[in-house]
Amino acid sequence: MLILGLDPGFAITGYGLVDSVSNHLSMVKYGAITTPAGMPFTQRLLAIRNELNDIIREYKPEAAAIEELFFNSNTTTAIKVAQGRGVAVETLAENSIPVFEYTPLQVKMTVVGYGRAEKNQIQQMVKMMLKLEKIPKPDDAADALAIAICHSFSRLTAKPV
Amino acid sequence: MLILGLDPGFAITGYGLVDSVSNHLSMVKYGAITTPAGMPFTQRLLAIRNELNDIIREYKPEAAAIEELFFNSNTTTAIKVAQGRGVAVETLAENSIPVFEYTPLQVKMTVVGYGRAEKNQIQQMVKMMLKLEKIPKPDDAADALAIAICHSFSRLTAKPV
Repeated sequence: MLILGLDPGFAITGYGLVDSVSNHLSMVKYGAITTPAGMPFTQRLLAIRNELNDIIREYKPEAAAIEELFFNSNTTTAIKVAQGRGVAVETLAENSIPVFEYTPLQVKMTVVGYGRAEKNQIQQMVKMMLKLEKIPKPDDAADALAIAICHSFSRLTAKPV
Repeated sequence: MLILGLDPGFAITGYGLVDSVSNHLSMVKYGAITTPAGMPFTQRLLAIRNELNDIIREYKPEAAAIEELFFNSNTTTAIKVAQGRGVAVETLAENSIPVFEYTPLQVKMTVVGYGRAEKNQIQQMVKMMLKLEKIPKPDDAADALAIAICHSFSRLTAKPV
């Protein structure tokens, strides 16, 4: 099963495609959809949709996994991130791809086995589990791969949102 | 010029279409896109997109006006509202409709002439300015009409986002 992990945003949306066959994992593709700061906000949302659609059409993922959003202190940014996430989730729904949500705690527990794992520990585990030569960059892509891995181990019991 | 006002949300997205010719205003249509609470979140976002696309195709608005989002105390709801707003804004961008944002203060100042206007005062002014027989319901539709009116008076100086 090909799983698309997403780390949503509006400036950077990380993505990672992980193929999971009987819990044997392989990395298919990872990267980030970036939208320049000078681009109008409406066009940035449109770019997220268009690039995500391109990825979906090329790789045809069977499920998507995305982190639940929590507020940070910068609410102006949080509102924009949430809007970018909404566009991503709607684009997945439109392509009939079931969407699964995980909290950062669930991702840490599943990937590292420890709920207080640091970012670097998660990234090392992603590198090891997917037999990569180096830690994926940018961080948003590594996070997206971690969420995809989390879903690969949770998918028998998880329910789509 | 036909202006589409939007009061974004995920449970209820109010909309109001106002035609403005030399500052003579007329109401073309108003209503609300509602998504039932029992519907999966992904499908609610998809429904907002689909119904907004239907409205755009039927009425072909030349500009859209939408309120800026501010956080309230219920952050879980705010994140969902922001995601719904993102879908609405992206759908407008995809249809090449310029999007203009106004703060609640700008809407009150423009429609009532008083920044601390109560909701009922705004609704009365909407009814009067659009020569309606009664106050539009639901409130989200009345708010959407107020935002459209705000843009009709601000459009010579406003810049799209």
